[in-house]
Order: sequence, then structure tokens, then C-alpha cells
Amino acid sequence: MTSDAEPRKAVGRGEKVRAAVHAATLAELVDKGYAALTVDNVAQRAGVHKTTVYRRWADRESLVVDALADHVAADIPVPDTGAVDTDLRELARSLVHTMTSPTGQAVLAAMLSDAARLPEIADARKRIFGDRLRRAEPVIARAVERGELPTDTDPGELLKTLAAPIYFRLLISAEPVDDSTAEHAAALALAAARGGVVRKG
Amino acid sequence: MTSDAEPRKAVGRGEKVRAAVHAATLAELVDKGYAALTVDNVAQRAGVHKTTVYRRWADRESLVVDALADHVAADIPVPDTGAVDTDLRELARSLVHTMTSPTGQAVLAAMLSDAARLPEIADARKRIFGDRLRRAEPVIARAVERGELPTDTDPGELLKTLAAPIYFRLLISAEPVDDSTAEHAAALALAAARGGVVRKG
Repeated sequence: MTSDAEPRKAVGRGEKVRAAVHAATLAELVDKGYAALTVDNVAQRAGVHKTTVYRRWADRESLVVDALADHVAADIPVPDTGAVDTDLRELARSLVHTMTSPTGQAVLAAMLSDAARLPEIADARKRIFGDRLRRAEPVIARAVERGELPTDTDPGELLKTLAAPIYFRLLISAEPVDDSTAEHAAALALAAARGGVVRKG
Repeated sequence: MTSDAEPRKAVGRGEKVRAAVHAATLAELVDKGYAALTVDNVAQRAGVHKTTVYRRWADRESLVVDALADHVAADIPVPDTGAVDTDLRELARSLVHTMTSPTGQAVLAAMLSDAARLPEIADARKRIFGDRLRRAEPVIARAVERGELPTDTDPGELLKTLAAPIYFRLLISAEPVDDSTAEHAAALALAAARGGVVRKG
């Protein structure tokens, strides 16, 4: 019985270690940024030995990529309010709330830090933001089905149009990002879709 | 005569040194990124002694801020084609060309690197992108005067709407950024303005 039970226990412990190390990685990113992040500090914060970290992650880069992917996979709820304007507004609000949280800002900063020179981080960023957009595409498909948007609306392009002004404020103009930013982004995306500017192909 | 001529000569040399050090700073940013940039390497590349650099710039941060500001101040020509759609398209194309050049990408990367944790760099970024937008505002004012856009169009907001999808592709989705990106950004900004989404106040 012990020989059956042990691997299961080991998997359970492995998951706990994984979650603790991910949380510690994000916390270190929040506090110190990517450049100052070390496996030693992550291990200490997670309460595990650094060899435990190195057993699971080859290096600092794969640790960060894995923690970021895990964080972004779980973050944005996909609304279904029955109307495209309220769906887009909710989606924009969720994005604003996620991206303005300390962890969201640290994740974004890490993706754009000198770490972005590493192909693994650049790939992860592309993949992660792609996934986030793809998960929200049903919102647009439902709006097209309800006849609220032109049938040739490109869901991915529309969602990028929604996200772009939020990221612009966060990263470039450094203006406040709040619910009114979300309202504006939703109105802009809707005007673009209705104006036929986000068509497929 | 010598006592009159000398300060002028000194200013001329000072300007040359300033330009050479700025160029070397940008070149180091392109090659190695902000984290690896040192005053020693910049001085060596510019062909000056590092004390010459330290005499003019207190530290690495002020050197980088100064080089970035100088680069961005000179970069985007403001079009005046007589029609808002071609003006916006030209503006978007110039932005695309600047931002996809090696120096443009290095400047952007530097602004968003771990250096962005420093208040001087964060302030410089805000100021630099603010200036770039403000210089292009006459384009929108002229379109409003010609009756091509609603009278309550907010020039700054419209220009941010134009810029946002370009930065989004560069920084987040990592898709190709080219003339068709510029066309799309211009069409989007125009649809937003005509849809009344970028109004003042």
C-alpha cells in the first residue's frame, strides 16, 4: 500500500511546492523586479531549499516564464451579459483591474524588462497574451450571432483594439488607469467594429 | 581676441562631445540594453575619457535620460497634406518607421526596462511621449478647422488612439509592425473621432 500511496503524496507535495515557488517568484518580481530576482531569494521566500527549485526548473528564466504563464492563464473572467457593450465594458474593467494590481504590473514589467531579450521570455509573452485574447473571443462571436456587430468582424483584432489603449496608458503615457479608461476602451472598440475597421482578412 | 574666441570654441567642442556621447549611449542601448550599459563603455565608444562624461552627467541615469530626450525630440515629422486621412496615415507611418528602427526599439526597451523603476526614467518617458504627441496636435486642429472632424474632438486623445495599436503590436502581441499597421491605426483613429469617442472633457 505504501508503494502506491507514496507517489500520490509526492505529487501532492510537488504541486504545493510548485504553487509556493510560483507565488514567491511573483512576489520577488513585485518587490525587486526581474533584474534583481535570484533563485536563492525565491527559494528562501517559498521556504524550500534552492536545490528543490533547481530540480524542477533548469534556470531563473524557465522559473519566471512558468510563473508568469500560470498567473496569466487564470486571470481574466469572460463575461456573458447578453449585450456586446456591457460585455466589452466588463472585459475592459477586468483587464484594468488585473493590470493595475501589484502582481499584474510586476508581470507586465517582467515581460518588458531586459528579460525580453531572452527568446524564452519573448515567446512566453507572445503566447500568454495570445491565450488571454483567444479565451475572450466567444464574447465577440456571440455579439455577431446576436446581430450586434458586422458578420465579418475579426474577434482577435477587436479584442486587441479593446486592450491597446489600456496598455498604452500603463506603459507609455503613464496616465491613471481606472474604470473610466475601461469605459473609453470599450466605446472605442465598439466604434471601430461598427465602423467596419476591424474586419477579417 | 583669444579670450573672446575661446569660450565659443569650447561651446563648439562641448556640443560635439555631447552629440558623440548621446550617439554612443544610444548605440550601447541598441547593442546591450539598459542593464548592461556602463559609463565606461559609453565613453570608450564616444572616444572620450570617462571623466569627460562624468563632468557633464552626474550618473548613468541622467546620461540615458538626456540621450533619450534628445533622440525623441527630433524624430517625428508633422505632416500637412490638406486632408485628415492622409495626415493621420503619414503620422502613423512615421511613428512605425521610428519605432521599428533599431534605435527606436532600443529607446523603447530602455524606457520600459528595469530603469523604469527609477523616477527619473519614468518622468522622462512621460515627458518625452507627451512632447511627441503635443507636437502633432496641429494636425488635428487643422482637420477640425476644415470641418473634417467634430469640433469637440480631443487632439491628444485622438493621437493616443492612433499610437496605441502600434505600441500594442510592438510591446504586447509582438506581431509585425509595418505600413499596414499604420493604415489600420489611422483608420481606427478616424473611426473613433467620427464616432464621437474622442471628445474633450
